Amino acid sequence: MKTRFILIQTSHAGNVGGTARAMKVMGFDDLVLVAPRWANVLRREETIQRASGANDVLTKARIVDTLDEALDGIEHLCATAMTPRDFGPPTRHPREHFAALLGTPEAPASTRPGGVAFLFGSERFGMRNEDVYRCHACLSIPTDPQFGSLNLAAAVQLIAYDWRQALGGYALPPASAPERPLADAKALAGMLQHLEQALVAVDFLDPEAPKKLMPRLNQLFNRAAPTEEEIHILRGVAKAMLQTAAQAKR
Amino acid sequence: MKTRFILIQTSHAGNVGGTARAMKVMGFDDLVLVAPRWANVLRREETIQRASGANDVLTKARIVDTLDEALDGIEHLCATAMTPRDFGPPTRHPREHFAALLGTPEAPASTRPGGVAFLFGSERFGMRNEDVYRCHACLSIPTDPQFGSLNLAAAVQLIAYDWRQALGGYALPPASAPERPLADAKALAGMLQHLEQALVAVDFLDPEAPKKLMPRLNQLFNRAAPTEEEIHILRGVAKAMLQTAAQAKR
Repeated sequence: MKTRFILIQTSHAGNVGGTARAMKVMGFDDLVLVAPRWANVLRREETIQRASGANDVLTKARIVDTLDEALDGIEHLCATAMTPRDFGPPTRHPREHFAALLGTPEAPASTRPGGVAFLFGSERFGMRNEDVYRCHACLSIPTDPQFGSLNLAAAVQLIAYDWRQALGGYALPPASAPERPLADAKALAGMLQHLEQALVAVDFLDPEAPKKLMPRLNQLFNRAAPTEEEIHILRGVAKAMLQTAAQAKR
Repeated sequence: MKTRFILIQTSHAGNVGGTARAMKVMGFDDLVLVAPRWANVLRREETIQRASGANDVLTKARIVDTLDEALDGIEHLCATAMTPRDFGPPTRHPREHFAALLGTPEAPASTRPGGVAFLFGSERFGMRNEDVYRCHACLSIPTDPQFGSLNLAAAVQLIAYDWRQALGGYALPPASAPERPLADAKALAGMLQHLEQALVAVDFLDPEAPKKLMPRLNQLFNRAAPTEEEIHILRGVAKAMLQTAAQAKR
């Protein structure tokens, strides 16, 4: 889905760079700046440094004078603001709002917007009322009520993350090694018998008064859910214990 | 739940400050730095600037030489690493892992750890294998496979957010105005009749050939789900249209 991030009257070049990076790691690249403090903000050193490789987002970004010019092709506008406004759109947590907007894979929403924009106000003053009034929802990132001072690029990062997840997300990286098969209960029981012999041989377990040692070890290994390979290692340990005990008794 | 953020061999003071801020907005304050590049990093200007008011987190923070010294009171360790390791812990997305660790409100996990730590490696080299091996899980933040370059403080922000949400999250801020009651279908129908008269009066609607204008407007207002107050406003508009039309015909 077409997704745009709109920064309104941003003061700090570092935040513009940080925003570009935050967008790009979540696979978004449509950035519009409305009346930023610095006209050359897209080329400032701090911007490029904080973008840390997200240069294509900066290259593609547009600078415009008014919010109106930033809204072409967008049907659904989300404000991000700490403080709910009288007469403003309903305030929602991002995850709930995105789920309502898109539905779920099982039950997709009947009408989805074709394009969505997220609006972020200036670092010092947040969003103006008149910009909030235009929006369909006001997203409130759930932060500690005692300290809600979220950095601008961090707010972009969280919204971009939740939105990407709502759109389906990214898969885990492929495992570097294939998943190893878990040992079955028979293999575990065989290993425990082997280990029991070894524990007797090294005089740790008294077969006349075994107490609950083996059931305890059984529970411990159940929780660990060992793989076949790990069972093999543990059997090797038991074997070495038995051999050493045999040598000690010679 | 006791929650600690551990930064290992961090290079940039700005990231330490950004981490403190990212933690605090999500209600966490236990930060430990293992062998940071700058011994005085907690007092550097850039750190304090980026912390932006999260000074108590910096004041409470500890600096230690080795990871061992950072782990007191912690039972569950989560690495954060881009690349899965052979023989390392299983790689998981944060949300899935947290749900498995804590369970759900309806079905809480049978055993919860008493303390959890999140480990973050250096900006340039990430986490060392030997540090990853100690962990119970390796958290992989789902980023664009083409550009996974997440800023350190941004990664802390995302993990802190997902963890706080898993722990129950924060409520929405109280609405500044009470939720206004939606108008019922009878009130909507009354308004539409009023509006219909007005549309006839201003010669927009021909009662001999009404086409489907009123059903269309009915559907539009159904989707808008107006409040009682908004019905009142719309009736005022209809009334003004009727009065103006009456004057025009005098």
